[in-house]
Amino acid sequence: MRPILLRLTNLTSFLLLTFLTPTVLAQNVILIIGDGMDDHQITMARNYVHGAKGQLALDTLPIRGAVQVVTLDHEDPTKVIYVADSANSATAIATGQVTSRGRISTSADTDRDFQPVTVDLKRAGYAVGIVTTASVTDATPAVFMANVAQRFCENPDMMVQAKIGGNWYADCEQDLIANGGKGSISEQIANSSIDLVLGGGSKHFLPNAEGSDITVLQKAQASGYLFVDSLSALEQAIENSENRLLGLFSPSTMPVRWQATGGVAADEPEPSLLNHVHEYLGDVTLPAPVQCEANPSYGNTPPLAAMTESAIRQLQKRSGKGFFLMIESASIDKQSHARRPCGQIGELQQLDETLKVALDFAAAQPDTLILVTADHGQAAQIIPNNSLFNGYGIPVYTPGRLQRLITPEGAIMAMNYATNDFQAEEHTGVNIPIFANDQGRDLVPAFMMQSDIYGLIKRYLLPESQ
Amino acid sequence: MRPILLRLTNLTSFLLLTFLTPTVLAQNVILIIGDGMDDHQITMARNYVHGAKGQLALDTLPIRGAVQVVTLDHEDPTKVIYVADSANSATAIATGQVTSRGRISTSADTDRDFQPVTVDLKRAGYAVGIVTTASVTDATPAVFMANVAQRFCENPDMMVQAKIGGNWYADCEQDLIANGGKGSISEQIANSSIDLVLGGGSKHFLPNAEGSDITVLQKAQASGYLFVDSLSALEQAIENSENRLLGLFSPSTMPVRWQATGGVAADEPEPSLLNHVHEYLGDVTLPAPVQCEANPSYGNTPPLAAMTESAIRQLQKRSGKGFFLMIESASIDKQSHARRPCGQIGELQQLDETLKVALDFAAAQPDTLILVTADHGQAAQIIPNNSLFNGYGIPVYTPGRLQRLITPEGAIMAMNYATNDFQAEEHTGVNIPIFANDQGRDLVPAFMMQSDIYGLIKRYLLPESQ
Ligand SMILES: [Zn+2]
Ligand SMILES: [Zn+2]
Repeated sequence: MRPILLRLTNLTSFLLLTFLTPTVLAQNVILIIGDGMDDHQITMARNYVHGAKGQLALDTLPIRGAVQVVTLDHEDPTKVIYVADSANSATAIATGQVTSRGRISTSADTDRDFQPVTVDLKRAGYAVGIVTTASVTDATPAVFMANVAQRFCENPDMMVQAKIGGNWYADCEQDLIANGGKGSISEQIANSSIDLVLGGGSKHFLPNAEGSDITVLQKAQASGYLFVDSLSALEQAIENSENRLLGLFSPSTMPVRWQATGGVAADEPEPSLLNHVHEYLGDVTLPAPVQCEANPSYGNTPPLAAMTESAIRQLQKRSGKGFFLMIESASIDKQSHARRPCGQIGELQQLDETLKVALDFAAAQPDTLILVTADHGQAAQIIPNNSLFNGYGIPVYTPGRLQRLITPEGAIMAMNYATNDFQAEEHTGVNIPIFANDQGRDLVPAFMMQSDIYGLIKRYLLPESQ
Repeated sequence: MRPILLRLTNLTSFLLLTFLTPTVLAQNVILIIGDGMDDHQITMARNYVHGAKGQLALDTLPIRGAVQVVTLDHEDPTKVIYVADSANSATAIATGQVTSRGRISTSADTDRDFQPVTVDLKRAGYAVGIVTTASVTDATPAVFMANVAQRFCENPDMMVQAKIGGNWYADCEQDLIANGGKGSISEQIANSSIDLVLGGGSKHFLPNAEGSDITVLQKAQASGYLFVDSLSALEQAIENSENRLLGLFSPSTMPVRWQATGGVAADEPEPSLLNHVHEYLGDVTLPAPVQCEANPSYGNTPPLAAMTESAIRQLQKRSGKGFFLMIESASIDKQSHARRPCGQIGELQQLDETLKVALDFAAAQPDTLILVTADHGQAAQIIPNNSLFNGYGIPVYTPGRLQRLITPEGAIMAMNYATNDFQAEEHTGVNIPIFANDQGRDLVPAFMMQSDIYGLIKRYLLPESQ
């Protein structure tokens, strides 16, 4: 792990020198979203990366509040449900509107389009960038650039009865251009005026655009996007081109930095035969403790912090007025679904390194509001490695799946995943944190609704509109 | 439920009129601890009591931060463990020192006494009160009044090889007065100079004090405590007596306000026979949705808010310099252990009503710092009532225990308890919230270690000592 950190730190120092000189009137908002990054996921990363007595860069931010997530029931939008997905929760952030699960900046039931904050910001002269470790067509980035009925409408091939899994089909026909819609998410990105889009998901740009014989990628290029597929090409493009940039660095979700020893996920404890006879008898074998190690599939995937540095330089070039940059660390969520705490921790560390880049930039350009938040809660819980009830002398173990991590400080952190019996865990309904740098002092309250985040961004960048 | 609230509000208005006139120089700290009250437990109470778009009194507090809980390994105190119990976490708050699970203001391994903040505060002339819905000898209140090796040493009968359950025995002999110790927790309370102690746990005062033929209660009375066992007796005592007060309103933990319909706890989903054959087949019967209702055992238990009002008036009488009052809502934790979300919600509502009493007092006496925090995380999670993966058309359900609550806003909140297979859930290792009124503005940082709370109290009440 150490080498990764060192390399990145050098890169950080090098690139910081190349940030442009402050423009006096520029105002910027850097919004960093940790998908599924609730307090539990933050604590596991803090414990692993810095130790129980340590702190993340996140923990140095002076402002902290709680955000209540509201989700509407798609069958009856006058009612709420208590657990969100990334589509409806990110829609709240991007548009200030509550909706039902799966919706990309459209209203529950009525499928009305909600205008993302990016539209007003572009109109007012700000540069806008979207950076993610997911596919750029995934729910969180998509809500800032597109309006569709359903998150699965990611590319033209998904628009008509495309199978998602089991007996589940995407339902996107109303969004076909032929039916008066705006087309799939990748097509809407190709047609957008967003100044920079970086992430994974190249596969969603390979099908032909609806009613066309060129691919969505070609469409994007025709509309003025310079396409890059490596970090070096990205950096070169920023030196040499004034164009809008589309950087796609993997076919779908970008690989994550870390995995557990040998790539194992959390697993079920194995009770002995006697314990099957009676729960007070016998014993139990817990999955063996593991450590986090580099994910061999990570390869030369661009780190989120490096993408962020490039994005900031590009956005500074694109407008003297300032910029809005949304950066998502997506796989905190995806790795929690997959019961992989090391994956989660590595991606939360990526978010934390990205925050350091943002803080360094804000030190040079003080009119920069940094907001860090999550979209919804996730499944992972830290439970005792030695049960509170071990004194009873009987086997006590989780009914779910467990991964026990040997932390660098030499203790065992036991991670529990037990929200369902399926191949992927559920989200949870906990309120989530929001953090801000000092620019958020009189702006970010101690408690707010998730849809109020939209208003914070507007109040900072478009005070006259409020 | 309504009648309870109305009655309390009337009581509040009535009693507020009787708070003493502000003494110019008095400074006060009201520390409210929700045992096990992490963000998840707060969100479930907010959703149930006020709706997903509503807010608790807690949510109106202007300052909010996160608190990292640190626990030492009792076998090797140079190492940490990642999940606390109330004994070590409350010790951090009361003494500023980290220790191992089960310890009451004593050090891990070495069993050295840590001096609780109450000692310095009494010495400086402040009145000190402790109010809880648990036994007053339970871990959270105990750390402010006693030093013993183990939380189970609650009364003289627990000091020598007393069985706790299974093959688990209390280990308290080193704390016997005969062995140079300070005796059990109830004996240390009886000998203390704390101005007011209110809660449950009368049974711990009934054994004879060590080496004596009078009970611990008689000992307390002999040392100057006026004993009361009802709210009306308490109110009368405050009108008529200048004495220290010991109010014990139940034999052990005080009954909780709410239960689920018919008193049911969370229960296991029942998969059909076919689903036992293969996880993708058949279906599952979830426990039927229930509502919260009054707990028939609650009777005329004094509400926490009413005890708090009495406590404030008593402490104002006991010192013109000001007071330190610790108030614990204990059964948020105990009801989560028991997988009873309605119990948790009702006790969190009690805490929230208590906070309103504190806020009303602070409005009249502005030099009052109100801190609200938890000691550690708990097991309960809000999971989707309809799984994110229902589209796959296969039964998806928790491996743990579920209770589905029909909320007053007409939706279903599904509560999951799945940290172990034992008769009581585990604590969890999540960082916990801290809230403060405006007096905490430059005092309470956005992130801190739990042991720093001790320093906050001292900095506010004993600035010269810092
Ligand atoms: Zn997710
Ligand atoms: Zn507990």
